[in-house]
Amino acid sequence: MLTKQRIHEVIFEADTPAGKFYDVALLVTIALSVLVVMLDSVQSIQATYGTVLYGLEWGFTILFTIEYLVRLWCVGNLLKYAFSFFGIIDFLSVAPTYLSLMVHGSRFLVAVRFLRMLRIFRVLKLSSYQGEARMFIEALRSSRRRIAVFLFGVGTVAVVLGTLMYVVENTLENDPHGFTSIPRSIYWAIVTMTTVGYGDIAPVTPFGQALASILMILGYSIIVVPTGIVSVEVSRSSASKKTN
Amino acid sequence: MLTKQRIHEVIFEADTPAGKFYDVALLVTIALSVLVVMLDSVQSIQATYGTVLYGLEWGFTILFTIEYLVRLWCVGNLLKYAFSFFGIIDFLSVAPTYLSLMVHGSRFLVAVRFLRMLRIFRVLKLSSYQGEARMFIEALRSSRRRIAVFLFGVGTVAVVLGTLMYVVENTLENDPHGFTSIPRSIYWAIVTMTTVGYGDIAPVTPFGQALASILMILGYSIIVVPTGIVSVEVSRSSASKKTN
Amino acid sequence: MLTKQRIHEVIFEADTPAGKFYDVALLVTIALSVLVVMLDSVQSIQATYGTVLYGLEWGFTILFTIEYLVRLWCVGNLLKYAFSFFGIIDFLSVAPTYLSLMVHGSRFLVAVRFLRMLRIFRVLKLSSYQGEARMFIEALRSSRRRIAVFLFGVGTVAVVLGTLMYVVENTLENDPHGFTSIPRSIYWAIVTMTTVGYGDIAPVTPFGQALASILMILGYSIIVVPTGIVSVEVSRSSASKKTN
Amino acid sequence: MLTKQRIHEVIFEADTPAGKFYDVALLVTIALSVLVVMLDSVQSIQATYGTVLYGLEWGFTILFTIEYLVRLWCVGNLLKYAFSFFGIIDFLSVAPTYLSLMVHGSRFLVAVRFLRMLRIFRVLKLSSYQGEARMFIEALRSSRRRIAVFLFGVGTVAVVLGTLMYVVENTLENDPHGFTSIPRSIYWAIVTMTTVGYGDIAPVTPFGQALASILMILGYSIIVVPTGIVSVEVSRSSASKKTN
Repeated sequence: MLTKQRIHEVIFEADTPAGKFYDVALLVTIALSVLVVMLDSVQSIQATYGTVLYGLEWGFTILFTIEYLVRLWCVGNLLKYAFSFFGIIDFLSVAPTYLSLMVHGSRFLVAVRFLRMLRIFRVLKLSSYQGEARMFIEALRSSRRRIAVFLFGVGTVAVVLGTLMYVVENTLENDPHGFTSIPRSIYWAIVTMTTVGYGDIAPVTPFGQALASILMILGYSIIVVPTGIVSVEVSRSSASKKTN
Repeated sequence: MLTKQRIHEVIFEADTPAGKFYDVALLVTIALSVLVVMLDSVQSIQATYGTVLYGLEWGFTILFTIEYLVRLWCVGNLLKYAFSFFGIIDFLSVAPTYLSLMVHGSRFLVAVRFLRMLRIFRVLKLSSYQGEARMFIEALRSSRRRIAVFLFGVGTVAVVLGTLMYVVENTLENDPHGFTSIPRSIYWAIVTMTTVGYGDIAPVTPFGQALASILMILGYSIIVVPTGIVSVEVSRSSASKKTN
Repeated sequence: MLTKQRIHEVIFEADTPAGKFYDVALLVTIALSVLVVMLDSVQSIQATYGTVLYGLEWGFTILFTIEYLVRLWCVGNLLKYAFSFFGIIDFLSVAPTYLSLMVHGSRFLVAVRFLRMLRIFRVLKLSSYQGEARMFIEALRSSRRRIAVFLFGVGTVAVVLGTLMYVVENTLENDPHGFTSIPRSIYWAIVTMTTVGYGDIAPVTPFGQALASILMILGYSIIVVPTGIVSVEVSRSSASKKTN
Repeated sequence: MLTKQRIHEVIFEADTPAGKFYDVALLVTIALSVLVVMLDSVQSIQATYGTVLYGLEWGFTILFTIEYLVRLWCVGNLLKYAFSFFGIIDFLSVAPTYLSLMVHGSRFLVAVRFLRMLRIFRVLKLSSYQGEARMFIEALRSSRRRIAVFLFGVGTVAVVLGTLMYVVENTLENDPHGFTSIPRSIYWAIVTMTTVGYGDIAPVTPFGQALASILMILGYSIIVVPTGIVSVEVSRSSASKKTN
């Protein structure tokens, strides 16, 4: 008999063979639907297979909408699910397609659907994977104050040195590679400190290059601070896990 | 009664409700004033709202000037405050605007005002945050000799390899992407060693590229040295904190 | 007497002087043959010495083919060797040259021949080197779940933020530096998160730059996670090696 | 009386006031002479002050030549000094200027003179600095096998993936941003793996970009290996230093 409880078991849990099969099928469907959205964004593919992809996208959306409604219907505590992490993700993975009927471009936001893939850990039924993930989160949580202090420091350096750079370089208004405004200079400072270094904006005056060098060495050295922190935290949490 | 001591309590401390409120209001004002300066540097915004932003900037500056004078008036030891870290920052956060009446462009230096935001840690009254910050500083201090040796090493490698690169590449005088002078080559060496890699200057000869490869692998490997150092220091200082 | 067993000893082992000499000669030959392929790919060299290099390449290939056949002939368990790591590498190091008679360009794949150089560790007869290599592999193996979780996390962030960037930047169809499709945006997200930062694709809108800044700081901070993990693993495996 | 022994004391040691003064004066002279060479390489400065800088450069060279000859004269074991680290540096710091009379451009190699600055550690008389430096060297030495294995691994990946990229991208002969030869592709692979990412060479085909993404994540992850190693080594050598 297909009762509410039986459906709940299948779609919310992965302990029964049916539940496991459902989850695997769901993951494959999610991956496919994300792939469809990606391919649709490539001009050359869109030109040839646009109609097919558009049809598929709506097919997946309707499927996921039905699944979402079934989840809402058979869940015990409706509000709790609707506002849980996965409940919100489930909603956000269908909403953009409907929204795209009104706002152009918004349908590409369905890539948030990819976050549903996080359910993969439940299917794998590997509590050890969850253990690893939990360890990460714990290490991050217990060092959150240090991270806050660190990010605040990085931000302050970026603002102050970015502004200084704006004054020093003092580029012409229309130079596409120049430090044309303070926000842009701060963006450059972040690009430099994190050692990403696009080169879309780069200093050209000798003094600007000297200042940039200092910022680089600072950014290059500063990375060691959080590294040390997390190393210590991970080390500690593994140690305590072993002891217990 | 609004005595000198009472004012001192409000603006210099954050223990009383009034003191706390004052500090929060100050932080918000600082953030707003920095935002005004940033927006003013964006050409398109400046063209439309230039006058408003200019007025706001002067408003904030006068406000901060009054605050600075009040601080000077009600503080116990005037000189000690004036030459303390925050005393200097407070002065530097108003000076550039006045200076801008004479020197063009200098008023953007008020971004130094952002440093005043460091007071945020006092408002948060989270001694643990201060503890974290102190731990960073201590870890840096106790490894300052290693850092000095490290930076000296990085500098020497940058000078020697940068010069070598200048000789090897031997680019034409006017190549905007070339190694046109030794200081510029040293700048390139720092950009490369820190793995920032703008690409504004890049080797084009095979031998130059081989030399650059060595420098990259060196820079890529060398980062581990300070990482190891700080890891060890942070680990040690956490350990000793626990024991005490 | 040149028995099958004697040949096996010489070409499969490195304990006897003859075996050692054979291995060293093989390594030099491999290095030379890889060098020939490399030089042949450089247009200016190919134009002048093309015929010589082509002849050398076929000479090396025939030599390695004979060696491969001898290995197959004198090995005890033919299938075990043929499908072992080195057996496959030995096959792949000759196959592309023959394949190039049919498929143009495939012969450059003989660079896989370079992998045969891994035999160098056997010649060096330094069990400690093998010990180091084993330690690396062990450290990687014992943290493979964490690495899987980490890579899954990086992949998810790249997909979600890459797509968001595609929507935000919304570049024209033919901009060579733009976010013209979702796969391309994901490629950009990986380039940014890993702090490589080519700059071939870079955000130009203020909102896009703000989003990119977040991704950079995320990527810059996230590297510490695997660093911490491997540090701990290496530390642990060294410790246990010492105890045993 | 200015005996040979007295001179030896002054120029080779830094224990006496005269010896210390001599060393400080030497360091300042070295720094100035390097500065002269650097300024001379900047076109705009060279055009105006070329003659002065040329004269200064010869002045410094003659000074250093005399000093080198005096060192040779008053040292006890001439050959031991001439072939010691500092003996070779002292020679190399004067040779390029003389060489420049014959080979154009070689005189910029005098930047090697900067290496003489390493004597600074002797002047500082801070045995602790030497201790730090020795710790670095020891940590590097005791992990030299791991570093060898690591570099060999990085090299192999660069060769194999670089070649693969050459085949995959298959760019036209004259594309200045393309993968035009295998050595150039290997250079690109190193630029990518070390996360430098100039962007002077960048993949344009979707498959090439996918392959590049793998290389980036590999390079981004691989850095943790030496980091872990050196962390452990530094940690161990500090620990043993404490125990002793």
